[in-house]
This record gives sequence, structure tokens and C-alpha cells, in this order.
Amino acid sequence: MVNIAVLGYGTVGSGVVKVLTTNQEKIDKKAGTPIRVKYVLDLRDFPGDPIQEKIVHDFDVILKDPEVKVVVEVMGGLKPAYEFTKAALEAGKSVCTSNKELVAEHGAEFLDLARERNVNYLFEASCGGGIPVIRTLNSSLTAEDIDEVSGILNGTTNYILTEMSEKGSDFDSALKEAQELGYAERNPEADVEGHDACRKIAILSSLAFGHTVKYQDIHTEGITKISHNDIVFAKKFDMSVKLLASAYKYRDGSGKKDYYAMVAPFLVRHGHPLFNVNGVFNAVFVHGNMLGDSMFYGSGAGSLPTASAVVGDVVDAVKHLSRTLFVFWDSKELKLSDNGSAKRPFFIRVPADKKEEASSFFNASEIAESDEIKEETALITEIMTEDEFEKKASEAGYVLSRIRVNQ
Amino acid sequence: MVNIAVLGYGTVGSGVVKVLTTNQEKIDKKAGTPIRVKYVLDLRDFPGDPIQEKIVHDFDVILKDPEVKVVVEVMGGLKPAYEFTKAALEAGKSVCTSNKELVAEHGAEFLDLARERNVNYLFEASCGGGIPVIRTLNSSLTAEDIDEVSGILNGTTNYILTEMSEKGSDFDSALKEAQELGYAERNPEADVEGHDACRKIAILSSLAFGHTVKYQDIHTEGITKISHNDIVFAKKFDMSVKLLASAYKYRDGSGKKDYYAMVAPFLVRHGHPLFNVNGVFNAVFVHGNMLGDSMFYGSGAGSLPTASAVVGDVVDAVKHLSRTLFVFWDSKELKLSDNGSAKRPFFIRVPADKKEEASSFFNASEIAESDEIKEETALITEIMTEDEFEKKASEAGYVLSRIRVNQ
Repeated sequence: MVNIAVLGYGTVGSGVVKVLTTNQEKIDKKAGTPIRVKYVLDLRDFPGDPIQEKIVHDFDVILKDPEVKVVVEVMGGLKPAYEFTKAALEAGKSVCTSNKELVAEHGAEFLDLARERNVNYLFEASCGGGIPVIRTLNSSLTAEDIDEVSGILNGTTNYILTEMSEKGSDFDSALKEAQELGYAERNPEADVEGHDACRKIAILSSLAFGHTVKYQDIHTEGITKISHNDIVFAKKFDMSVKLLASAYKYRDGSGKKDYYAMVAPFLVRHGHPLFNVNGVFNAVFVHGNMLGDSMFYGSGAGSLPTASAVVGDVVDAVKHLSRTLFVFWDSKELKLSDNGSAKRPFFIRVPADKKEEASSFFNASEIAESDEIKEETALITEIMTEDEFEKKASEAGYVLSRIRVNQ
Repeated sequence: MVNIAVLGYGTVGSGVVKVLTTNQEKIDKKAGTPIRVKYVLDLRDFPGDPIQEKIVHDFDVILKDPEVKVVVEVMGGLKPAYEFTKAALEAGKSVCTSNKELVAEHGAEFLDLARERNVNYLFEASCGGGIPVIRTLNSSLTAEDIDEVSGILNGTTNYILTEMSEKGSDFDSALKEAQELGYAERNPEADVEGHDACRKIAILSSLAFGHTVKYQDIHTEGITKISHNDIVFAKKFDMSVKLLASAYKYRDGSGKKDYYAMVAPFLVRHGHPLFNVNGVFNAVFVHGNMLGDSMFYGSGAGSLPTASAVVGDVVDAVKHLSRTLFVFWDSKELKLSDNGSAKRPFFIRVPADKKEEASSFFNASEIAESDEIKEETALITEIMTEDEFEKKASEAGYVLSRIRVNQ
């Protein structure tokens, strides 16, 4: 039998207990030994809840109990999660987490520490909830040179964009509805401004490219400026607006490699695997040099899907109690190139009377008009660098909005 | 350094050598040691090909060389692949394969043998080519009770159905085009009659449910009877026709579990993750009791994607040279329930003058007409068992075609 401790009895923590209870028989079989929750750390008490007898308020109880081999950190935030994780790993306990902030900030450090102590630091649930993309990058796509990882990594923003597209609502009312349904926080900034997706793509790109991508280096734009008109014209091009968290490697003729990363709204073409990922679902697109396109889709959040990923990690930790699993992520910092040199087409909206002028000035590949919005025209520019585009847009002076087009 | 041998220098075998060469640096790093091809077994010689110096014609050379730790079996077919695999495992060598016939027929036996000898039998490439679904079932979704695995597991038939849908072609001309493009064999029976998909769903369902699902027990229908008219009316319902290989668990009120498996054309609703999987791409949909819906998408065939999956297995085999990885598949046979008791709606086409009669007789939930095909009407029946449907269809006497509707 292996004893574990769960830090935090919130949404994910209670899900972890539920998953372990509901699927106990299957989980124990796959782990090769029974897995039992010995402690749950929380500031609160839960009188009447069967978990109450396992509640402790002092982390030291867990830290000093040699029977606890695996610690599940599902508190979120940096403090005190950082100190608890570090102390647990130093004490020779494996740690499984869903804490994307902590993994993005200290992942490489904890992986090093886990390696030193012959234990594991696992974080499948930190990106894409129940989507098993991290183990896929670590253990399955080991024969690949990965060129790109791009994902719809935030359910709140994807729900809002889907509502705007399907119901014609504007951003504010879609956000309000998402809040009422519990899909968005009362303070939605971390989601709608892209900060959540930024942490996740920092983690995924670090795993894909092998070195640390600092989330602070990733240019991040949210979806608050996406308008009803953008959505209407995007549909005319048979594209959908998605908040993409994207990282890719660009190899020029000389073999020099440039790495780019960005979180921003993108227009995704019909036929791309991410085009149809709607509502609160998440998906991660991976392109490998041998594999070509692949995509992993599922519930990106929610108590049980996220908890399922955490418990999957616990099973792995239990099966490898004194053997560190290989993770391709070292602490060397990966220098990202300036996005100004990244090339792509841009979607722009312009006043209808500028149609001819803009079409020629931006060398448009496609133009769309709308019966609903007669006073505007939208077009897709030729492929150009971000710097070139910004210069031209400023020179033109009449560009009403711009969204990058995913290639 | 670890030496490996490749059995068969055909499409996949040459891909394996190419993947190992192209991504050597990354692969060696992830394996923790250089992986080198010592022998390639083939009946042919390849003068001028750098592989020639490694070609051997006698399997015994490989079997008796203690330096060869991993054998890659990419010959296909049962003979002599069965004997070679058995001998290699008995000699304490791990075996990695893309051979779905062999895995479907002898998977549990080889897993037992590998366990006895402390080595591994790995077959990621046997289902869905480059889609890493097998390792996901084995290592990631370990906290799940899996209810359903359904896939588009054959690229040839998916290409044909996509062409029929997008270009309005009929089955014969779409097949001919697929053959000209190399997407279909000159003898296409294994693909178009569903036998290939049947082997793959036998493997996936054995892994999902833990016991052996015999492919001979799986009811299998191909796509040869799908007509242009079926496709036209399916679109009217906003559904797409897909060859689904599907296995699921049904729990009735008393807690009794029934297992069903089938390969057949299905109508997939818009919004289902498999709806938009087009062309030669494959995808596997998995539903878990905690995770909910998830889907894994990618290249289901092709030399390099398949080879990438094989080499991913080789890396795993090298990292676990004398330690058997856990696989949830034993040799106990899983008894499938009779499909006659499986419940679902059915799509049917009937003569236009039977519209009212059929609509009432089958308690239709949806009806569609087409300007192109005025002489017919299509409808979706209420949910009923296959037996009930067959009885009613035979009683009616006017049903022109029927396709199951995926729920």
C-alpha cells in the first residue's frame, strides 16, 4: 500500500479524492498496489464530510510522516505551494500537481531536485486539464523533432468566443453568461487577458523544445478587443476566432533555428484540427517532423477531468517510487526571437470606402463583405512580418481591427 | 549503446531507419543511450543503399546475437512474424511492432511471454499509425474507467468517404482515385470491408477493458454499400458518414455490464469530435467516467508517422531493458453481447411516397428531403434495438438503405 497526502481540498483536491474512491479497484490494479489518502491539508474543516478525519492543518505532519510517499499539490498559486513542493521533494516524496503557475515558474528547478532525490515531479494536469498531452510529449513522441505546439488552452475564453460566434453576442454579454454558468471567475482577468494560457504554453513549449521557455518572455494578448464584427467577417472567410497559445520553431535556409511563442487571438482556417474545438473544450495541436499533424482534444478544466490527470500522475509516481522518469526539460533558458520578425497573413477590417485602396495596399489574398455590416470590408493580407504589418497599418491609418491568421 | 534489429525493409521498416537517422541526436538523448541498427532482415538485397551492409537473410543471426536487445517487427502478417516474435521474446529481447494482425491475434500471449522474460512487447504503431493512443490508454488514463473507444481507424475508407462527400463521387470512382494516389491497395478488401479497422478496435478495446476482445467476435461491415444518395441525405441532417470501429460498455440499472463492439458505417453528428476528421487522417475517441470526452487525431498510416510510433516504442524498450511495462490486457476472453440488443437511432432512405407512412411507423425524430433526389426521403428513426429495427424494416418492406446513427 502507498499512502498519499492531498494539499488543498478545493475543486481539484476534492475531485482527486472522488476519482480515487470511484475508480479505486481499477486504479489499484494499474498502480500494482493500493493507493490510499492518509492526509488532506486544508485550512478549513469539513464536519460531516468523510474526509474530515484525514484533515490536517499543519503541513509538517505530512512532511514528517515517512509513510507518505506521494504529495498531491492542488492548492494553486506560488505561496505556500513553492515551499511545500520543495520540502516534499527534498524529503524524498514525489509531487503531482495541477498548479500551472508554479510549474511555469519553477518546473525545471523542481525537475532537477526530483532527479537528485530519485523521485518524481509530475504535472500532467497543469496544461489542458484531462488531455494527456504532457505524458504524450515526454513518453510517446520521443522519436520526433517537434516543430510546433499550439493550443486552445483556456476553456473560459473558448466558451466566450464560441458563444459570440454561435449566438452573435458581444464580448461583455458572453462573459457575463460564462460567469453565471460558472465557466468564468468573477475576476476573469487571468483567463480573458491570456495569462492562464501563457503559463500553459510556457510549460508545453519547454517540454517540446527541451529548454526553459520563460512565460514572462511570451507576448500575450487577450480576447477583450474581439468584436462582433470581427466574428461576422471571420465567418465570411470560413475561419473561426480562437485564442491560440502557440510556440514554434522556424528553420531558415542556413539551418539557423528561431523559436517563437505567443498567446493571441488567431483566425483558424476551416480544415485545421483546431477550427472546430468549441465551448469549454481544449485541444493541443502538435506538429512533428516525422509525424506531421496531430491533435489531442478533451476537457481542459473541471474538477473530475483535471483530477483524473492528477491521479494518473499519482499512479505513475507510485509505479516509479525510487526511479525518476525522464522529462525533456532543462533549466537552460530558451531565447525566443522577436515576434516582429514572425511572418503570417493578417485579417483586417477597414471602412467600406477603403476597400479598393486597402486591397491593393495590403496585397489582399481574400476580401469579404457582409450584408449585416455594410459600412465595413474585411480582407486577408499577404504574408508579411509583424513589423511590416504594423508599419503599413500605421501608414494606412484606416485599419479598424487586426487579427493574426494561423497558417 | 543499444543495438536493435529491424525485421522487414518495406514501407515501415525503411521509415524506422529514416526516423532513427534523421532524429538521431534527439532520440539518443531521450533514450539515454545511442540506439543503433545492427541488422535489417529482408529477403531482398539493396545494392547501393547504405542499409545493404546491415542486411541479413537469416533470422537466426539476429536471434543468436546477444548484442541485439530490441527487435523491430514490421513485416506484417502472421507468418513468419509469429515465430520470429516468439523466439525473440523467449531469447529475452524486447519486440516493437506495427503488425496489427499479429497483435490482435496473439497480443495477450506475447504480453504474458514478455512479462515472464522481463522484457517488453510494444505495439503503439499497430493502431492509428502515429496517433499515440496506446500509450495514452496504458499510462495516462490510468485513473479512468473507460466506457467507450471509437475510432476512425482506416485512412483508405475515410479518404473514400471524404471524397464522396466533398466531390459527390460514387464509391467506385472514389476507390479508383484512392488507388491511383496510393491511398488504397490494388486489392482493397481488407480496408473497404472493414477487416483492418476490426483488428485495430480489437486491440484498443482489449486495452480499454483489460481482457481479450477477439476480433473474430466483432461484427464488421464495410463501406461498399454506401451510396451517393446516403451521403446527400446525411448532409441534410448535418451529419457525416464515417466507418467507425467502436467498442463500449453499457451498464444497466442493476449494475450488470454489457460490452458491445462493431465496425460499420455510422452517421456522426455535427459537434461530435469525429465529425470533421477527414481524408486519410485517423482519430480515436475515448470516453472515461471521470474524464468525459477526449479525442486523439493524427496520421493513421504512412511510412514516417507509423515509423515514428515504432521508434517511440524502441526508446521505451531501451529505457526499460529488463523491466516490463504494465499493460492492462490479460488473456481472459471478454464476452461481447449480441449487437441485436444494442440501442440506437437509424438513418433510413425510403421512397418519397412512403414519407408519411415511414415517419409514423419508425417514429421519426427528423426527416429530410433533397432537391437533387426528389424520389426519396430520409429519416432518423427513434432509438430502438437492432433487432427491433430489423423486424420493422422487414415488415415495412420499402427501406432502401439504413445506416446506424452514432449517439
